[in-house]
This record gives sequence, C-alpha cells and structure tokens, in this order.
Amino acid sequence: MYKEITPNGYGIAIETEEKPLYSAQSEFQKVEILSSKGLGNILTLDGLMMTTVEDEFFYHEMISHIPLCSHPCPERVLVIGGGDGGTVREVLRHKTVKSVELCEIDGLVIEASRKFLPSIAGKLDDERVSIYVEDAIEYIKDKKACYDVVLIDSTDPMGPGEGLFTEEFYTNVKNSLKEGGIIVAQSESPFANPKEMRMMYRLLNKVFKHVKPYAGPIPTYPGGYWSWAFCSETVDTPVIQDTQRAKEIEKKSKLYNTDLHEGVFKVPNFVRNIAQDV
Amino acid sequence: MYKEITPNGYGIAIETEEKPLYSAQSEFQKVEILSSKGLGNILTLDGLMMTTVEDEFFYHEMISHIPLCSHPCPERVLVIGGGDGGTVREVLRHKTVKSVELCEIDGLVIEASRKFLPSIAGKLDDERVSIYVEDAIEYIKDKKACYDVVLIDSTDPMGPGEGLFTEEFYTNVKNSLKEGGIIVAQSESPFANPKEMRMMYRLLNKVFKHVKPYAGPIPTYPGGYWSWAFCSETVDTPVIQDTQRAKEIEKKSKLYNTDLHEGVFKVPNFVRNIAQDV
Repeated sequence: MYKEITPNGYGIAIETEEKPLYSAQSEFQKVEILSSKGLGNILTLDGLMMTTVEDEFFYHEMISHIPLCSHPCPERVLVIGGGDGGTVREVLRHKTVKSVELCEIDGLVIEASRKFLPSIAGKLDDERVSIYVEDAIEYIKDKKACYDVVLIDSTDPMGPGEGLFTEEFYTNVKNSLKEGGIIVAQSESPFANPKEMRMMYRLLNKVFKHVKPYAGPIPTYPGGYWSWAFCSETVDTPVIQDTQRAKEIEKKSKLYNTDLHEGVFKVPNFVRNIAQDV
Repeated sequence: MYKEITPNGYGIAIETEEKPLYSAQSEFQKVEILSSKGLGNILTLDGLMMTTVEDEFFYHEMISHIPLCSHPCPERVLVIGGGDGGTVREVLRHKTVKSVELCEIDGLVIEASRKFLPSIAGKLDDERVSIYVEDAIEYIKDKKACYDVVLIDSTDPMGPGEGLFTEEFYTNVKNSLKEGGIIVAQSESPFANPKEMRMMYRLLNKVFKHVKPYAGPIPTYPGGYWSWAFCSETVDTPVIQDTQRAKEIEKKSKLYNTDLHEGVFKVPNFVRNIAQDV
C-alpha cells in the first residue's frame, strides 16, 4: 500500500505491489516506479506522488492546453521539470509548435519514465523535442525573449525544486518570454498546502503584471485538488485565441474543452483569497 | 488511520484516534464519529466517508447554492438524506426560504451529528426546519407540486440509499415540484464511480427534460472529485436568477461565488460523456 499523508494528517492510499518496479537514488532524490492495478504504474520522487498512468491526464492537460490555447500561435515552448514527458506530449499536440525544450535536472526521472511510463513519456523522442538535463535556474539565465510559452512543471517547494520558487527565478523566466508570452506554473494545493501556495503567489504578483489562478481535480494528489498560476505581462483575461486549434485539441482530450477553458478560472472564494493574499 | 479504498484499489487515508468518539449500529447502518487532528470530527456510515468538519463546505455549498441561486424565489425546500444537517444549514442562508423539510431515514445520523458535529448540524433547530425520520421513498409519494427545490443528499446506490436511485423515485420527486422547480442530486464520482454515475444519468435523462451535470473537488472522497445532477422541466441553462441574493451568499461563503456558479457546469469531456451516456 502506497500512502502519502500531508502534515495535516490526511492524504491518499493506493494498493501497490510490495516491490517497486524500479528504485534508484539519483544525485537529487529517490526515484521510484510502483505498480498498481487500479491506476497503472506510478512515479514517485522522494516518496511523493508525481503521476499515475490512469489519472495523469488531469494534470498534463491542465498545465498545457490552458496556456497554449490562450496564445495565438505558440511556436517555441520551454518545459521546466516535467521529466515524465506528459506535459511535452500534450504541448506537441498543438500544430503551431515548432520546438519544445525540456529542462529537467534529474536524468533518472526521464530514464525511468521512458522505460516504465511509455504512454506518458513516449513523445520525448519526437523530432521537435530537445532535452537538457540541467538545472533550470542556470539554464534560464541567458535566455532572453525567446519563448512563447514556459511551463513550470516542478516538484514542491522543497528538495531539488526549491530554487524554482524564488523571485529571481521568476524574473529570469519572465525575461525569457517573447512579447505576448505566457507562463504557467503548478502552484500547489489550495486545500492541502495553502501556506506554500500563498507564499508563491506573493512572489508571482511581485514579478508579473497579471497572475491568475486556475484549479481542478487531481485524484491522486493529497487533497485531490490542485492549482496552476497563469502569468503574463500582456494577457489579462486568458481566453481562447485560435478557436479552430482549441477545437482540434478538444476532440482528442479526456479533459480539455473550450467551455472548460473558461470554467477553470472561476475558482472558489478561498482560492481567490490565497492567490490575492487576502 | 481511517482508510477508504474503492474497488479500483485507491482512495483516501486520514490519521484518526484509534477509538471512535461514537459508534452505533442503527436499523440501517453502522454510524460512527471519528476524531482527527487535521480535519476535525468525521462522520462515516458503514465505514464510508460522509463528511468532515474541515472540508464539509465543498459538498454542502455545491449541493445547495447552485440550485437555490438558479431559482428566482425558493420558498419551500425538501432535503432528502442529509441527516448531518450541513445542506439544511446552507439552504437556510437564503432569505427567501420559508420552510425546509429534512427527510432522513436514520435518526441516529441526526443524533450523532447534533452531538459531535455541531458546526454542521447546528441549524437543525431553526424554526423554519421540520425533521421527518422516514423513508423518502414513501414520504415523497403523496407530495404533489409543493416544493421549489428538492435536494437529494443521499448515500451511494447501495445499502439504505439504494431505492433513491430508481426511475420510480425520480418520477415521484419530479411530481413533487412546483412549476419552475429544480432538483439537485449528488451523482457520484466521475473518476472513481463512472459506472454508477452513468447508470444514474440514464435514469435521470428518462425522467427529466433537462439534466445538467456539475462537478467539483471533495478532498476526502475517494478520487477527490464529485458530481451533482441539476434536473428540471423548465430550466435549460442554470443561471443566477436573483443577483442580489447570490452576492449575499457569496459574501459569507468559502466556496460559492457568482463566477463559480457558471464555472461548475463547464465540466471535462469525460464527465460530459458519462452524463450523456456516450
């Protein structure tokens, strides 16, 4: 049985095979693949749930299609973290996209995902993808005005992901955007991690002109509910820019549709309050 | 540790005191109150999670304010099930409401909630509330054209709640509505119980002219994600009918706001497909 319990004393439980399919200590963290009947293979880092084969679509569709459909023509995209490949897979479904860079600090995450999560990682070999096994904090420093969309698909603000939750990092990411560019960052659970989420939005609001939270369910994250921050210097209200492309994405999505695109920004009061530091 | 694992092999885990605060076998089910640090007191029926003090607002605001704000002037409301009192409490916040009937089959649920969940059950003593400890299947039979809103706040389609998921019952509930009336029924988890949800919408679509699913997070239900069915003979698109009342409800809500009212109906593709039996 895999269990992940937050400091508040609740969380998720999943029946898994006793022996992991894969377990290795990288330079940064413990990388494990567990096998479950109900949710397929599972990736954990330092014992924390990253993704499962059966419910990964919630997270990966939310982090990718909302920003990409809010951009009139996303051509060059950077994914920070996201070594399982799920976000890259969804980004590639947008026909406008000419290149995707994946900057993941831990090569073992990519290796384990390629081997044990092929339905998630399978598009990492696409010719439009370049993989950089590097620290994004360094990688982003000399990138100026080159991306249409940057997706921060990071772990939590502790361990190897910690440096991705700083004002300096967000400023560098902002400077890496082309005119009209969009950043989306995973922004923790409004219910299970409200303190971490509040801290993060305080920083984002300092750096970006427009910061909008959006939210949705993730069955296998503790609290079952997650948020993402939509950040931009130019896009105040994130609406669909290319209806035809959005409709194409909708056709083959489990989650995304053009109504949902509007709906995810209509968040509960307590989520608004966290994001606005009320 | 309280654990609730679905037949698919995943679910929730909550650290609780080993000894329940209350445990009794009623005529219908085992009624228990558990104590937890993170989520406060917890009500379970036959070992299944019903509600917790800390996250009950998700469920109770969703089942009540969406239909009541979609009705121009809800005066008489029936709550079926819902013996914990949370739905009644939220219904009473609407100033138009003159009377609320609670029809709960199991008096022990009401008794245990009054004693151990006072923040949830506390409004059951309001003078506008009448409590009937009866089987709703019988209770509804002779009620014709008398309710503005009926809320089916039932357990799952097994055990004592089973008879509340039949074409006959839904037809009787429909006949209990006044002209322009609205029914909302909890309609299971789209992710954890898609079969049960599909079966239910098949029946609802036979009985009602308009059936619209809406959905949102419930951190302590397995899958973390829940749905409700909005049913009516007259209301095709559920929009806010009395903006002033909706804004008053918004002011003191953790969840509900007038944007969210629109957003909850913008459900993912897989939820649409279940509700439309695609």
